[in-house]
Amino acid sequence: MVEPLEARIAERALAYVAGPPSGSDPVIELASPEELQELFGGAVELGFDATADAHADDAILGAVDLVIKHSVHTSHPRFVNQNFAGPDPLAVVGDWLGAALNTTGATFEAAPVFTLMESAVLSKLGRVAGYRDETADQLPTLPPGLFCPGGSTATLYALQLARHRIRPEVRRTGSTGEQLTLFVSDAGHYAASKSAALLGIGTDAVVKVESDSGGAIVTAALEAAIRASLDAGQVPFAIIGTAGTTVTSAFDDLDVLADIAEEHGMWLHVDGCYGGSALFSPSERHRMAGVERSDSFVWNLHKMMGMTQQCTALLVREPELLESCFALRADYLFQPDKLYAEYDAGDRTFQCARRIDVLKLWLAWKHHGDAGFAARIDHAVAMAERTRERVAASDEFLEVAGTFTNVVFVWVPPTLRPLLSLDSLPPEIHAELHALAPRIKARMQAEGTAMVGFQPIGGLNTFRLLYMNPAVTEADIDVLLDRIAEYGLAACQD
Amino acid sequence: MVEPLEARIAERALAYVAGPPSGSDPVIELASPEELQELFGGAVELGFDATADAHADDAILGAVDLVIKHSVHTSHPRFVNQNFAGPDPLAVVGDWLGAALNTTGATFEAAPVFTLMESAVLSKLGRVAGYRDETADQLPTLPPGLFCPGGSTATLYALQLARHRIRPEVRRTGSTGEQLTLFVSDAGHYAASKSAALLGIGTDAVVKVESDSGGAIVTAALEAAIRASLDAGQVPFAIIGTAGTTVTSAFDDLDVLADIAEEHGMWLHVDGCYGGSALFSPSERHRMAGVERSDSFVWNLHKMMGMTQQCTALLVREPELLESCFALRADYLFQPDKLYAEYDAGDRTFQCARRIDVLKLWLAWKHHGDAGFAARIDHAVAMAERTRERVAASDEFLEVAGTFTNVVFVWVPPTLRPLLSLDSLPPEIHAELHALAPRIKARMQAEGTAMVGFQPIGGLNTFRLLYMNPAVTEADIDVLLDRIAEYGLAACQD
Repeated sequence: MVEPLEARIAERALAYVAGPPSGSDPVIELASPEELQELFGGAVELGFDATADAHADDAILGAVDLVIKHSVHTSHPRFVNQNFAGPDPLAVVGDWLGAALNTTGATFEAAPVFTLMESAVLSKLGRVAGYRDETADQLPTLPPGLFCPGGSTATLYALQLARHRIRPEVRRTGSTGEQLTLFVSDAGHYAASKSAALLGIGTDAVVKVESDSGGAIVTAALEAAIRASLDAGQVPFAIIGTAGTTVTSAFDDLDVLADIAEEHGMWLHVDGCYGGSALFSPSERHRMAGVERSDSFVWNLHKMMGMTQQCTALLVREPELLESCFALRADYLFQPDKLYAEYDAGDRTFQCARRIDVLKLWLAWKHHGDAGFAARIDHAVAMAERTRERVAASDEFLEVAGTFTNVVFVWVPPTLRPLLSLDSLPPEIHAELHALAPRIKARMQAEGTAMVGFQPIGGLNTFRLLYMNPAVTEADIDVLLDRIAEYGLAACQD
Repeated sequence: MVEPLEARIAERALAYVAGPPSGSDPVIELASPEELQELFGGAVELGFDATADAHADDAILGAVDLVIKHSVHTSHPRFVNQNFAGPDPLAVVGDWLGAALNTTGATFEAAPVFTLMESAVLSKLGRVAGYRDETADQLPTLPPGLFCPGGSTATLYALQLARHRIRPEVRRTGSTGEQLTLFVSDAGHYAASKSAALLGIGTDAVVKVESDSGGAIVTAALEAAIRASLDAGQVPFAIIGTAGTTVTSAFDDLDVLADIAEEHGMWLHVDGCYGGSALFSPSERHRMAGVERSDSFVWNLHKMMGMTQQCTALLVREPELLESCFALRADYLFQPDKLYAEYDAGDRTFQCARRIDVLKLWLAWKHHGDAGFAARIDHAVAMAERTRERVAASDEFLEVAGTFTNVVFVWVPPTLRPLLSLDSLPPEIHAELHALAPRIKARMQAEGTAMVGFQPIGGLNTFRLLYMNPAVTEADIDVLLDRIAEYGLAACQD
């Protein structure tokens, strides 16, 4: 008996989760758009004709197999391309259960269990971050935050809260043309500028403050920038502190930022999308010191913690502000005469229907416990340390930056060894080095050996290896560095 | 041998999808927050202590069973509470596969197959909506739209595009205080006001135009409102046409709205979150006539089409505008020197990392074909018609409004029969009727017989039954109406 199509797809998905690619398996089986089109043509065409016909189960399963084969294997220990990797299998199946029960997080009546789980998890995250002490309610009707569809959206909401605190009338009147300004380091995430554009504040209002060589904001420069903005008659209203920058994973000094924010009555938003998870580790949480003094704090559990896309918590120190900022009291949905409506979260945020993102996190946390979460972080940092040691031990590489889980370096061609610094390289050498990283990466993709990120630092493409997948071993690190060196050498000899 | 925890959770999720609650199964096993807390306490406490311990597999599975038991069964044919219901099992497992492969839709390199699938589906949706003709590319590098995390977010992006078209400098400078105005019917979704607040345009700028007794915008009133706004020196910049209002599923006359928008050089955004799916049915798509003339159109496939939360397409007639409106060209992510970067979708939208929402829709469409999608719509409309007939045939009910898939009515106590209209009811009768619907609904929840929505119309709570689940039968309709009548009678006799 052939099983129903759904069961056969589910079986393939589960087999993938139970035994993800690793070791000598490819990280990706690269195919061009044209090649993918041809491959799918043998099962189910990627495109749709004017009339879309129904396809037989076997054709659909053929397409499913191609989807799996030609997707990037983000579970593979040598996928170190981005700031997510190695999904927690329990989170994956938690996500599945949420999808099976398909509902929305807007009201208690549609999501009774999940509403309480959001309250429980947000309360716990708020305590871990130090927004509340341990005597706080474990299941508050008004939890200290929200779940959001990603970190950029959370920053958007946080900046709206920041504006609302000082200019509550703008929600109704629209902005008046008054020049609000906000401050973030030049190593911070572009969500600040994207949010400023969307909020009608404008990208010009985003003052990008100098960061030091490690990538952390120079706080004296921040103070000077705020004073300059005040002198120009502008209204500095928010500081975004970055905890774990995209490239080097630098942490701003949040305590100093909190001092500055307090002095000027500004909102402090912490972008801890990546680095917030350091809080889970007793030995790493010092990096987040001061976060408890911020006004809001975004934390992507789908990055370091291996929750599937998406699992973003926006913590808010004064959650009462959420309702005054967002509520519109739609009378077809948020009626006070419904059962347990005091728990309804939907009118405290911008979204109406909202995917259930909490279940996977609740299950993973209950299963692993605090100790399991800490172990994930500590393993990641240990792998970064091991990488740093190997990079430092050989003149094949020059470490450029990076802290915590991130190692940023260049591969050095033999003719340039030993290279002690990237400063004052002749322009033609600079250009040659700059072109090398994309070529090395492209060959890694073509051979499927690894997926690594690169990005320009000082105009020169550098590699970034970053860790969070608990499956990474020292042997994987050796493969990563060995392949970079091997492909680099080959590229030089072309 | 006990299977690993993940497999045992997946097995439960699959069993739920394969055999969802129906017939005499409860739609919900209602429990209060306190009762849920106690129930979970027998397996795994909902809340988290200062230190979260790791729990044994059996305890976690006990909690999973409670999650399933006490969640609202949105697959049940008598869940007619909201504008989503009856998830397509193929969409559920498509969502699972996407979660297993956990990646982000921002770049081709991280999501090669899914990037092409987005292109394919958005191209097809664009052709179904009439934005492009059938000679258009089936796999364009610049598809006519985006996937977004929900309809409200899509409307937010659409209004930003609308502002950007007439005031491109605002993205950089912030809004100047100039009074932009936008127009939506008073039966339209509150996303218009929420978006205006977030965009710095202000809720006062949202002109709520009168709707007719069916819930469609009165176009003469719209014209008058635009003229009044112009006379007041404001800048009318956008009209939101609603295709499928939340309560009655009314469709605005999109062709007339397009005429008006053209006349004034305004952006026409169609909120077809719910009703857009009428386009799939040859006999229902006339309701959407004129959508091809709009500038943007949001369509939630997670509503009528049973995709799991979330699956929202924002179609844009001039997709070139997306990049000029949103792009910031972050150099660590969107490098032109990466392979096939011309397909990267991430810089054409606000979000950075983005959950894969397309796979389930691609699989479902390829499996069911156009004909299967049409059948889902036609069945829903047939069930609404059947409900209307039964409501009209009995003086137990008075139909108040509704079209397409929505039937809106009150239950009439025996002492008031026959009731021909809700107009000029004495205040005490009005108050009594108003209080009845919540009581009837609460008993349905308590007994688990159904989940139905109610909302005030003219200050009086009315029931709304709406259909999209293909599992609904005429017998379910009979149960829905019979229980409303039975519980209503009992409530009157209390």
